[in-house]
Amino acid sequence: MKASQFLISTLKEAPADAEVVSHQLMTRAGMIKKLGAGIYNYMPMGLRVVRKVEAIVREEMNRAGAIELTMPVVQPAELWQETGRFDKMGPEMMRIRDRHGRDFVIQPTSEEVVTDIARQELRSYKQLPKNLYQIQTKFRDERRPRFGLMRGREFVMKDAYSFDRDQASAKASYQVMAAAYRRIFDRFGLTYRAVAADSGAIGGDLSEEFQVIAATGEDAIVYCPNSDYAANIEKAEALPPSQPRPAASQPLTQVPTPGKTTCADVAALLGVPLQQTVKSMVLATDQLNEQGEIVKSQVWLLLLRGDHEMNEIKVAKVPGLDQGFRFASTTEILEHFGCEPGYLGPLKLQKPVQLVVDREVAVLADWICGANVVDFHTSGVNWGRDLPEPALVMDLRNVVAGDPSPDGQGALAIERGIEVGHVFYLGTKYSKAMNASFLAEDGKPAFFEMGCYGIGITRLPAAAIEQNHDERGIIWPDAIAPFTVVLCPITPERFPAVKEAAETLYAQLLAEGIDVILDDRGERPGAMFADWELIGVPHRVTIGDRGLKEGLVEYQHRRDAAATKIATADVLAHLKGRLAV
Amino acid sequence: MKASQFLISTLKEAPADAEVVSHQLMTRAGMIKKLGAGIYNYMPMGLRVVRKVEAIVREEMNRAGAIELTMPVVQPAELWQETGRFDKMGPEMMRIRDRHGRDFVIQPTSEEVVTDIARQELRSYKQLPKNLYQIQTKFRDERRPRFGLMRGREFVMKDAYSFDRDQASAKASYQVMAAAYRRIFDRFGLTYRAVAADSGAIGGDLSEEFQVIAATGEDAIVYCPNSDYAANIEKAEALPPSQPRPAASQPLTQVPTPGKTTCADVAALLGVPLQQTVKSMVLATDQLNEQGEIVKSQVWLLLLRGDHEMNEIKVAKVPGLDQGFRFASTTEILEHFGCEPGYLGPLKLQKPVQLVVDREVAVLADWICGANVVDFHTSGVNWGRDLPEPALVMDLRNVVAGDPSPDGQGALAIERGIEVGHVFYLGTKYSKAMNASFLAEDGKPAFFEMGCYGIGITRLPAAAIEQNHDERGIIWPDAIAPFTVVLCPITPERFPAVKEAAETLYAQLLAEGIDVILDDRGERPGAMFADWELIGVPHRVTIGDRGLKEGLVEYQHRRDAAATKIATADVLAHLKGRLAV
Repeated sequence: MKASQFLISTLKEAPADAEVVSHQLMTRAGMIKKLGAGIYNYMPMGLRVVRKVEAIVREEMNRAGAIELTMPVVQPAELWQETGRFDKMGPEMMRIRDRHGRDFVIQPTSEEVVTDIARQELRSYKQLPKNLYQIQTKFRDERRPRFGLMRGREFVMKDAYSFDRDQASAKASYQVMAAAYRRIFDRFGLTYRAVAADSGAIGGDLSEEFQVIAATGEDAIVYCPNSDYAANIEKAEALPPSQPRPAASQPLTQVPTPGKTTCADVAALLGVPLQQTVKSMVLATDQLNEQGEIVKSQVWLLLLRGDHEMNEIKVAKVPGLDQGFRFASTTEILEHFGCEPGYLGPLKLQKPVQLVVDREVAVLADWICGANVVDFHTSGVNWGRDLPEPALVMDLRNVVAGDPSPDGQGALAIERGIEVGHVFYLGTKYSKAMNASFLAEDGKPAFFEMGCYGIGITRLPAAAIEQNHDERGIIWPDAIAPFTVVLCPITPERFPAVKEAAETLYAQLLAEGIDVILDDRGERPGAMFADWELIGVPHRVTIGDRGLKEGLVEYQHRRDAAATKIATADVLAHLKGRLAV
Repeated sequence: MKASQFLISTLKEAPADAEVVSHQLMTRAGMIKKLGAGIYNYMPMGLRVVRKVEAIVREEMNRAGAIELTMPVVQPAELWQETGRFDKMGPEMMRIRDRHGRDFVIQPTSEEVVTDIARQELRSYKQLPKNLYQIQTKFRDERRPRFGLMRGREFVMKDAYSFDRDQASAKASYQVMAAAYRRIFDRFGLTYRAVAADSGAIGGDLSEEFQVIAATGEDAIVYCPNSDYAANIEKAEALPPSQPRPAASQPLTQVPTPGKTTCADVAALLGVPLQQTVKSMVLATDQLNEQGEIVKSQVWLLLLRGDHEMNEIKVAKVPGLDQGFRFASTTEILEHFGCEPGYLGPLKLQKPVQLVVDREVAVLADWICGANVVDFHTSGVNWGRDLPEPALVMDLRNVVAGDPSPDGQGALAIERGIEVGHVFYLGTKYSKAMNASFLAEDGKPAFFEMGCYGIGITRLPAAAIEQNHDERGIIWPDAIAPFTVVLCPITPERFPAVKEAAETLYAQLLAEGIDVILDDRGERPGAMFADWELIGVPHRVTIGDRGLKEGLVEYQHRRDAAATKIATADVLAHLKGRLAV
């Protein structure tokens, strides 16, 4: 490609609403162009990246035996009503009515449609396993679209769905996809982790997120530097403490803590470590009748150490809280604790509550909690002496760096990541809801065991940039760069030899199948270099008159601090050596 | 690809709602699967065809210097309001409101968005010309979707838009696209015609449709067998008659024609040629005030020969009718003609009307028309004697086979076609409406001269089938076949040599880059052949035990009546010879 024949449009300044570096740089580099909130044109430079991502994903999906099809963007509501998702999905699912008044959705995913295809097309166990995928436009009407392609409304996703005859086969299909995802992410040339994720009500361990590591990532990733262990923060287990509970040594004392409603404030006031304090989280569950009216409510008190964060996914697994819970109302709190939030604790309750205690709290002695009296906390609290031994002790918290790894291989570390892929074992959730069955080997109908596997095709470039950029712009990995090599002739309009050398090298690189762009726009060197550093083409060859006279051109990788002089005759071999093809 | 690893799903019967052969065959061959009215899944076999069409279009568009980008499926209404199309477009444009109550459309095309991009990105004449294109999902909420992919609601279109500094350059850009389209359609391997089409209010001759010739086509195509002349029926000019008007020879006579309201019935009753009769078309135009209320209406009488059809595009060019017209109401007809429709004519009017006469009617003598009296016609009508010489004589009719070609090269012929491409010079229609300008060489802002160029990516396979099929199924041209070659081993489970020979040949063809599928499903020969004939793979190699023992396999092109025996050692060379690569 010659730059004059392409659409190159760089900006000095990022738009005011671009909060993250990938959004800023993609906009400045002319890769995307905002059309509306969360809706972008993929400009020619950006589309090249998207197409390269697509091609890698497609190749590896095909290699893994998945079969490509496409399902419509606009889907009839009927199938979504079969699974109940037409009503259950919130306003992020875009609903439309056609001219005849029929309901449709703009697909946010395609579980319903693909299950409908399977129940019609896959009639016998002999046709299984099958994995069907599409690379298709999706839409989610985010309440607050932002961060450019990271949380857009219209986006492209690769979504694959596997259909198997039984759980064992489904798990094998899952593992095939997990392996394909590793190949895909390896090929992207990004630093990533496959982390265990929560698999929700389905249970089992067959859920992994593929996280591109970046300091700006939305997700916290937990890993063990000494082993393969990695999980997202929702999933990572905080092991039971290995040390026993110390003996009680302090008397129970009500201490004044005026205005100190947080554990941190109380610990500071009293001069004790934050780890000695305990926070009270008050939840409630409701029992409904058939009309959906609340007939009875139950208040729950969860105790966590002051320095720990509650993990909602773990809380949702507590027996009794696993059908849904909410935070308690102020009325309920006053009724049970006789005190406003900020000074709550498990002692001297007005009415009994269900107590759930985090593992770390269960091994504390002489701890501090709210006194259920405004402006007072209680210190020297001890299990078995001041209140009964806890009946329900569970892992309720997010792990923190330094916690022991669940695999026993050392201490956990935490880093940030951007989720760009997810593999997930679905079981029979959709096949049962849609009565999607096949004839099993025993001649009886059986529900498909399913899995689903997504990759955010248009999110991936943004994640790549969050990981790979500097103050001058983007630094693309070779595999997904819009162009692999840029040729920069210096003032070729003045030096015919420069123009000719550039054209010759351009033709040579094209003949080698190298994705090269020749900058023939006639820009001055400074502006030209700034453009390509912003755009992030990884390999640059600069051709100048002075160098040519010595038989030299300059090579510079986007990460190099300075250029390297290379004999003109060697530049092709040098480039081929640098390109990890 | 091995068939066992793919999704092959053929049907003996077409669905009841499949009215046309392409819809029937694509459904039976498992290429598409209906999800809702006019909404289809592209099943793996069908998607392969679509992807090949896309690839050819993309290659040739790139070769022609066009630059690919993608514009969103869901587009904010604001841009569509700038051109007025948000209100003007009928219910076929799907409108949505997001969770914040903002209006959006699902793109039927992208003139507005691409013009918005151009007015921001193309600031100087130095950046012109530019041609931007996308291959993207479109949606049109057809009132009555039908014919499968021929008139679906969701479809994929390649839409390109050129931006030029002036008309001369825009015309050059148009010609570049017209030439690229010829290359594209040549590569598809289809019989097609590029036909002149009407360019509407913009004028000029820069509008061509690319029509795939098929007896089942919706469009009538007019061409001259002796020359390059081709046009669609809306556009093709009916030349002025070369013969002069004969002298009047009959007296004006009112003849009873009870119940005969059509020219055909009248001609039959009176025993005269249909060409001697004249039909009266009564139209009306309205003059509106600023409130959009009708302040004055005008009734028009158009006279055409009884054997001719009115051409609305031509009528819309009659001075006075070019701002829109409608058929006259019964009230208006009674008021002006004193008679109900069926017996109308230009004589003895109650109130004057605007008369427009087709060229062929102007040279008639002794003609027959309605008498403006129920159950009566008038014969022996003659211009200049019974009514004034016609003041406004124009081409109002569709041409018919045998009419002289406008280029003087002989008589016109008519065939049917399916429109799958259109190149169109837009002028400044959109750039003016959206104030899209660039800085011209003289330093002043100028509006872009635009063109638009579409190809129906998902319609093309349907058109290809309408043109290429037989009673057994589809016959794909090599370039867009889902697979180019199918290998059919006969009962390989019984004959290891067959299995081995098939696998060897399969590996050889793959190594040559030939798109081959090996049918390893274990189907019996009859069912296997029927599947591949239905699916339409153009080249088949059958490998059987008996043949192998003689060192032979069988080759059969999908159009061949019988198979040809070929030495096993020669089959690769034979195939390569047959593949037009």
